[in-house]
Amino acid sequence: MPAKGATVADWAVTERSGLAQIRAAAATRPGTTLGIGDDAAVLDLGDRALACVDLLIDGVHFRRSAGDMESVGHKAIAVNLSDIAAMGGEPVAALVALTLPHDGMGPDELGALYEGMEREAAAAGVSIAGGDMSAGPALALAVTLLGRLPAGARCLTRAGGRPGDLLFVTGPLGAAAAGLAIDEGRAPPSATPSAPALVRALRRPRARLAEGRALAAAGARAGIDISDGLALDAARLAAESGCAAQIDLERVPVADGVPEIAAALGRDPAEFAATGGEDYELLVALGPGEAGSVAGSAALELHRVGHLQRGEGCTVAREGVPVAIGSAGWEYP
Amino acid sequence: MPAKGATVADWAVTERSGLAQIRAAAATRPGTTLGIGDDAAVLDLGDRALACVDLLIDGVHFRRSAGDMESVGHKAIAVNLSDIAAMGGEPVAALVALTLPHDGMGPDELGALYEGMEREAAAAGVSIAGGDMSAGPALALAVTLLGRLPAGARCLTRAGGRPGDLLFVTGPLGAAAAGLAIDEGRAPPSATPSAPALVRALRRPRARLAEGRALAAAGARAGIDISDGLALDAARLAAESGCAAQIDLERVPVADGVPEIAAALGRDPAEFAATGGEDYELLVALGPGEAGSVAGSAALELHRVGHLQRGEGCTVAREGVPVAIGSAGWEYP
Repeated sequence: MPAKGATVADWAVTERSGLAQIRAAAATRPGTTLGIGDDAAVLDLGDRALACVDLLIDGVHFRRSAGDMESVGHKAIAVNLSDIAAMGGEPVAALVALTLPHDGMGPDELGALYEGMEREAAAAGVSIAGGDMSAGPALALAVTLLGRLPAGARCLTRAGGRPGDLLFVTGPLGAAAAGLAIDEGRAPPSATPSAPALVRALRRPRARLAEGRALAAAGARAGIDISDGLALDAARLAAESGCAAQIDLERVPVADGVPEIAAALGRDPAEFAATGGEDYELLVALGPGEAGSVAGSAALELHRVGHLQRGEGCTVAREGVPVAIGSAGWEYP
Repeated sequence: MPAKGATVADWAVTERSGLAQIRAAAATRPGTTLGIGDDAAVLDLGDRALACVDLLIDGVHFRRSAGDMESVGHKAIAVNLSDIAAMGGEPVAALVALTLPHDGMGPDELGALYEGMEREAAAAGVSIAGGDMSAGPALALAVTLLGRLPAGARCLTRAGGRPGDLLFVTGPLGAAAAGLAIDEGRAPPSATPSAPALVRALRRPRARLAEGRALAAAGARAGIDISDGLALDAARLAAESGCAAQIDLERVPVADGVPEIAAALGRDPAEFAATGGEDYELLVALGPGEAGSVAGSAALELHRVGHLQRGEGCTVAREGVPVAIGSAGWEYP
């Protein structure tokens, strides 16, 4: 589609060359019958297909001026893979709706963006199978991820939790929020030797696909990925399950380097970790019966962080005493 | 996700209330096992799922200032249904990634947008099954449509055409481009009594779903929907089929009212109709053997407009003589 102010011919060339560039780089992987180049992709998704979409917008979710387009591409795929992971599914294919800024984007920048997407897609066995491209006010990506539930597998929804279930996360929290504080210059990288790892956690998150499938198979009752912070995402899981959540701050696993960054920001480390977004660990509810055996499994790193109870909302407590936290929400630009 | 400059709490309320509003309005239709409210939608799409995405951006594809959000919603669904139609498929579910402008959007405006989407989705038996929402520089929609090929049905790709095939369209062309000229004040609505119908063709296109399925069943070899103009989309179909297209201007069916608008613009009506975009008729290639029986079928309105031949690109001819047209492309803002 043409940009306002650009001539039709100019834009058509941009769209054509951009699409040719992307198509040449996109491999077709199992489950994709027909990829880029037709009116729609043809996929093998079965009777329990999974479908989700996430937006990444310049100036809101990333800064193009940071000059790391490959990480933007990586993240655009990874955050969607995380949604498939949170259902216990396996990813198959992605569609990329790309808004290019009106002032254009060079082939190198577009190439880096797609390289980041293609690498992360390849690592998960996913084809980039289609998309759309348009000019617009700012660089933006809407990535749709299609997947499927493995035959016979349970679907890990948000709605299956019950009062009395225990809540677990799949790894330490706070790294991405700490990375953001460094990236934005709010905290000095000199505060911790973990600074590069924290920035990497922000820019190159990893979806917990194997963990999601294992937890679904192990009988987890409900699950969600932690994109907007443990406290807020626990509230969401609880709401869909028709109950309330309690998070015990003293149990929250805090990632390496986060205490130093939290200190530099004048924040409590556990509270910072419980409200920081974009870690993409999974939060799951396990019945008291399953909790012991699953949490003891050597194959899964699980940290108990709280429980579900009657009521609504999410209470954050320290040693059993509710505390007011800075925001229900999360650390985000 | 929070808007830059908005407080987390402000935006969280907006996202929550917006999602609640959308969820309340979204019906779950056959093929959708789990709709809005989880990490991913669960759908029954089978082993030949169809997936496509289209962007609609304020200032590029529509003008929010025109105050007709219901039509924007309608069109966001319809243009995607058209891609499913062009594959000979049946639509199942849509995901809506919605970028709200930083200065916000009232519940009435959001409601009208979703009413337009939900009505058009309902008419096609489609659930709005998920999505994402963020603040950004301008109102924008990325709608993903998921569908499936009916059991035993052929898939109508762009790639199946061969030299010697005849090209047909499913209805008269040029109405949407003429509607755009009226909408933008480039042509006077007084030029034709069909002006309201032309503007409606632009704002409320209809996807040719039944036609796509019938043409696939009738043995059409290749198909595409005409979104960017007959000449350009014929070139695309030909390129994917490894041959060239010729369009015969004297055969191009011209929609009512288009000759008057073309005259007001100083354009030849057939050329205007052959290059104007957004009509969403289907363009199909039929082998010479099938062409007679299919084109004679009372159930389908088919107009022969040209043929495929050896070579590449698209030649536009009048009475067999190639003519230079203003642009290979299309009428678009």
